[in-house]
This record gives sequence, structure tokens and C-alpha cells, in this order.
Amino acid sequence: MTLFSEINEQPGRIAATLASQKKRAEKIAAEIHKRDIRYVFLAARGTSDNAGRYANYLLGALNGLPLALATPSLFTYYKKPPVLKNALVIGISQSGKSPDIVSVLEEGRRQGCMTLSMTNEPASPLAQASDFVLELGAGAEKAVAATKTYTAELMCVAMLSAALANNARMWAELGQVSGWMKAALKQNDFIAQAAQRYRYMDQTVVLGRGFNYATAFEWALKLKELTYIIAEPYSSADFAHGPIAMVESGYPVFAVAARGRVFNSMLEMLKRLRSEIAAELVVISNDKRALSLAQIPLSIPVETPEWLSPLVNILPAQLFAYHLTRAKGYNTEQPRSIRKVTETK
Amino acid sequence: MTLFSEINEQPGRIAATLASQKKRAEKIAAEIHKRDIRYVFLAARGTSDNAGRYANYLLGALNGLPLALATPSLFTYYKKPPVLKNALVIGISQSGKSPDIVSVLEEGRRQGCMTLSMTNEPASPLAQASDFVLELGAGAEKAVAATKTYTAELMCVAMLSAALANNARMWAELGQVSGWMKAALKQNDFIAQAAQRYRYMDQTVVLGRGFNYATAFEWALKLKELTYIIAEPYSSADFAHGPIAMVESGYPVFAVAARGRVFNSMLEMLKRLRSEIAAELVVISNDKRALSLAQIPLSIPVETPEWLSPLVNILPAQLFAYHLTRAKGYNTEQPRSIRKVTETK
Repeated sequence: MTLFSEINEQPGRIAATLASQKKRAEKIAAEIHKRDIRYVFLAARGTSDNAGRYANYLLGALNGLPLALATPSLFTYYKKPPVLKNALVIGISQSGKSPDIVSVLEEGRRQGCMTLSMTNEPASPLAQASDFVLELGAGAEKAVAATKTYTAELMCVAMLSAALANNARMWAELGQVSGWMKAALKQNDFIAQAAQRYRYMDQTVVLGRGFNYATAFEWALKLKELTYIIAEPYSSADFAHGPIAMVESGYPVFAVAARGRVFNSMLEMLKRLRSEIAAELVVISNDKRALSLAQIPLSIPVETPEWLSPLVNILPAQLFAYHLTRAKGYNTEQPRSIRKVTETK
Repeated sequence: MTLFSEINEQPGRIAATLASQKKRAEKIAAEIHKRDIRYVFLAARGTSDNAGRYANYLLGALNGLPLALATPSLFTYYKKPPVLKNALVIGISQSGKSPDIVSVLEEGRRQGCMTLSMTNEPASPLAQASDFVLELGAGAEKAVAATKTYTAELMCVAMLSAALANNARMWAELGQVSGWMKAALKQNDFIAQAAQRYRYMDQTVVLGRGFNYATAFEWALKLKELTYIIAEPYSSADFAHGPIAMVESGYPVFAVAARGRVFNSMLEMLKRLRSEIAAELVVISNDKRALSLAQIPLSIPVETPEWLSPLVNILPAQLFAYHLTRAKGYNTEQPRSIRKVTETK
């Protein structure tokens, strides 16, 4: 199966991305430091938008850069692009072809901004509209559901953050991601078995917070694309502001609760869901307190630092979506109604 | 019923907000023009976050201001707030009490930014942390599900946009919103009847785009809070990038398709859903082409301009959520598991 092999390619692919793009990331960071950049204006869709969510937290927490997620329809339909003075304009797209994302970069360039794209296609229109390109180097992605291009996008975002911080410890940790990924993939047989339990599940919510808010969105997107269930992602804070009302006893809640700054708030939410509501929990974590609350615990290496945990946490999530797709009897390679490249305006 | 009467108060309340806050909005706009503001940094949660989504499109399209939605956990958990130089920091909260929103405004003030809050409680911690306050003036909101504070928040955002543009036509149109709202509320009996059809619906998606991306989110939130169904909001563009895969014949899709710049793209999506997939459609619109595709057409006055349509479109949506709650036999005043003021950190 192409999807399964693409999931398993990821440890090797992101190691190659790190090796090939490090110098370029450092050059880009030097240029950012030279310019009078006040914030990042980032355009992306679908899976790449989830890489943008990671960038939002990472560049904010580690580099002090505020980030605005672009609303591409302002550029295409309303024809009134905002004034982008002092913005770094970033576009993320594996194909580099989505016209709405390209139009944001073109407008950034027209307004004299520094422009940067992250794409798997260095000859694409998106790359051509950019001053700088970080190449995903993920190899051709044949399955419709994006997996290896997502983690390559996260790797490029993380490299940009490390380069901006000029932090040797961060670069050293980046070199370990590939190994942590390999360890996470070893749960494949357990996940294949565990997915059976959800053969007739038709809806779920997916919780994450901070750096792993992106992971919750991407896990939910894989579930929706591949298994056709309703899977709605939430930050645990927004979830407490209303949607928790719909959770009843036995209702499945998926959660990403890696060790780090937001761990205690996630743990409190998981305890509440388990003890007050008796929800069903599928939890990805590297902390025993969170894993022990779950009917299905999915672990990543305990030493994975929070800032890089989204690159590792998404692997058990991808495997879970893959095996649930098979358990439900659907096509893992070609989901109905969607195309690999969606050219929205 | 308190919720029902609060929904029906809205035409009067937003007219009062317009009358009482116009001068203040103009004063705030004058101050913004004086300062070297490059972008807006906006913090909100839940329903108020949907008012933030409206601000994102409106201030971008009509005032050229890029907008970054704050990630409050950066301020509370990661203790690494971004550098907010040249940002206008806005907080939106009906209660003005959510500690994470207050902390964003406090940080903005600490960094010397201009700060503005929109709140129903002018003595709240949020108001106290702000240089300027736009008061919602919605009166005490007793139902847990927010309705009249939401439209009052949209009114404050729209007034800020009109004041920044210093545009007499926009102010004249703001004066007509109350009348358009009254007309939309006249469909109450039809909506009460139509909601019966969805007594056993347990999931839906809600589509909107551009200015009404916010309406899709807020409609979905009311459905989730009150009726406990899964209701996931999407821009029609993101929806086409994957989640459309889950729609089968008869699957309910709710859509907001007001006349304006994004109408044709919404109409194309509705045609595709109806003719290719045979989805079930509940559509709020002021265009016959969109309404005629729906099993349940909900209309707003044809003359409502796109930029103000979110204030009007949400009324049939609120009524629909209210009547569906009754049809399902749930409590419209006190949904389970949520509180009026959620003090997330």
C-alpha cells in the first residue's frame, strides 16, 4: 500500500530534509534578522494549514514572532489585500500549485515584502513567486492523503525556528527526530489491532493544545479524509467553552497530550472526561499519567521535547487513521470526492 | 424562554449599541490613524472568537489591516509572548473575565501597544486592562448560549470598520441592520416547523466563506452547545480540500450563502453537493439561486450588503438551533457541562 509505505518513509525523509536544507534555513534566518520584520503572514490550505498552525505557536513561543494566518479569499475574491508592511510572507503547499496561496505570495512580493515558500516542488508557481524556498524533499507523494509532506513541512518550520534562535541545542534535538519517529512507528501492530475497536465509530473529537494544536487538526483531517467519520479538532480550552456539552458516556475522544507546558491542562481535561463523563479515550502521549487514563494508549519516546513532539505524535495518528480505514473497508489510496491537488481560488 | 426572548431582543439591542458607541468608535479610529499600527492582534474565545473571525475579514477587506488571532496559551503557559511592536491589541469577551484574554491585553499594554476591548461589562478586568472600550450594551445575557452579545460584538467590529474608513454610506447601512434583523426574525414559525425534520439528525457540516466564515462557525457552535450534535464549520474552500469526502447522499449540509463576492463560489459548492452527491441542504441566503437548491431555505432581506450580512444571517441560524433543541427535548436555557463564564487559562 502506498499510504502505508509513505508513512514509514518519514524517518528517512525528514533526516534528508534536515541535511539538505539546514544551510538554506540559516541563510533565510540571516535575511529575516537583517530586515525590519514585525510579524509573519502565512498562507496555506488543508494539511499545509496545519503546518501553519505549528508555525503559529513555534515562531511565537521560541522566536517572539506574531503570526497571522492569511485569509486567501481576501486576495482572490475581495481584491482588497491588506497592507503587508513589515510582514514576512510565507506560503506552504506541497504541490505549490494552489492559485489562492500563490496569489498571497505574489501580493507580498508586489508590496515589497520578503517572501518564503515551503514546497515539495521547487519549480512550482509558488516557488517562483518566492524570494526563498525551503524544499520539502519528501519525494513524490502518491497517496491522496498527505503524510510525509506534512512532517517535512513541520521539519522546515522547526528548522526555520532553530535558525532564527541560532540555538545549538535545538539543532541537536532536530537531529534526533528521525530516531524518535522510528520508535513511534514500532507500535504498528498494536495500532492495527486497536483500530478494530472503532470499526463502527462514526464521530469523534480530537483535542490538543499549544504546539500540538496542529497535531489535533491533522489527526482529525486524516480521519475525515480516509475514514469519512466526523472528527472535529479543538484546543482543550475552546472545548471547555461549549462543545464539551456533546460528550456523553462512551463518546470517543482522541487527545494529544505530550509532556511540556500545556501538559497539566490536558491531563486535567482527560481526568474530567474519564471520571466525570466516562468518555472513551485514545491518547497519544509520552507521560504515563495521561496514557493510563486511555482505553487505547499510543506512546512516543519519553525524551521527545515538546517543541518537536508534533513531528513524532502525528505518526501513531497516521497509522491509526490508516488501519481504521482498512477496518472499515475503505480505500486507503484514493478517498472518494477529493483530489491530490485542489486548485481553490 | 430566556434564550428565545434574548434572540428577539437583538434588533433593539444593536440599534442601541450603534447609537451609544458611534462617537467612541470614531475616537478610537482617530487614535488608530495617529499611531503607526501595522496589524491587529486579537484575543477571544468561543462565541467571541467568531466575532474575531468577522473582524479578520472585515478589517482586512475594508480597512487594509492584517489581523493575527492570538494564541492565548503562548501568554499563559509558554510565558513567551510575541513581540507586539506596531500592533493594535484587541480583546473580545462578553464577561470580560477570561484570564487568558485579559493576559493578552495586559501584555499588549506592557509592551506599549494601543489596547481595545469589546465587552458587555465595562467594569471587568478586561476593560480595565484596555486603553479603549467599546461597550456591547446588550443587557444581562442569562441564557448560557450567547446570542445578543454575539451580534453586539459584530456591531462593534462593524462600527470600528466604518469609523476607520470614515465612510458615510457604511454608517447609513449600519442604521438599517436593525430593520433587516426584524425581517429575518419573521420566519420564526417556519423555522419551528422546519426544525422537526432534523429531530434525529446527529451530525452536520456548516459552510460559509469570506465575511460569513464567522457565521458558519457561530451557527455550528450554537448547534453543538444546544443540541449536542456534531456540527463542524468549514470554509467551502477548505471543505473541498478533503472533508467533502465524508458527504454521502442525504447527509445534511448547512450553508450561509449571502450575495456578494464569494457568492458564486458558494453557489458552485451547493450545486455540486445537490446534483453530484444529493446532500440535504439547509441554506441561509438572500439569493433565489441558492435558496432554490435547499430543502429548507432560510432567507434574509435581499438588500442586505455582504459586509453586514453576518449580523442578519445569524438570526435564522440561532432560531434554527433553538427550535431544534426543543424538538430534541433538551433544555434551551442550561446546556449540560458548560458554564456561562469559562475561566480558561
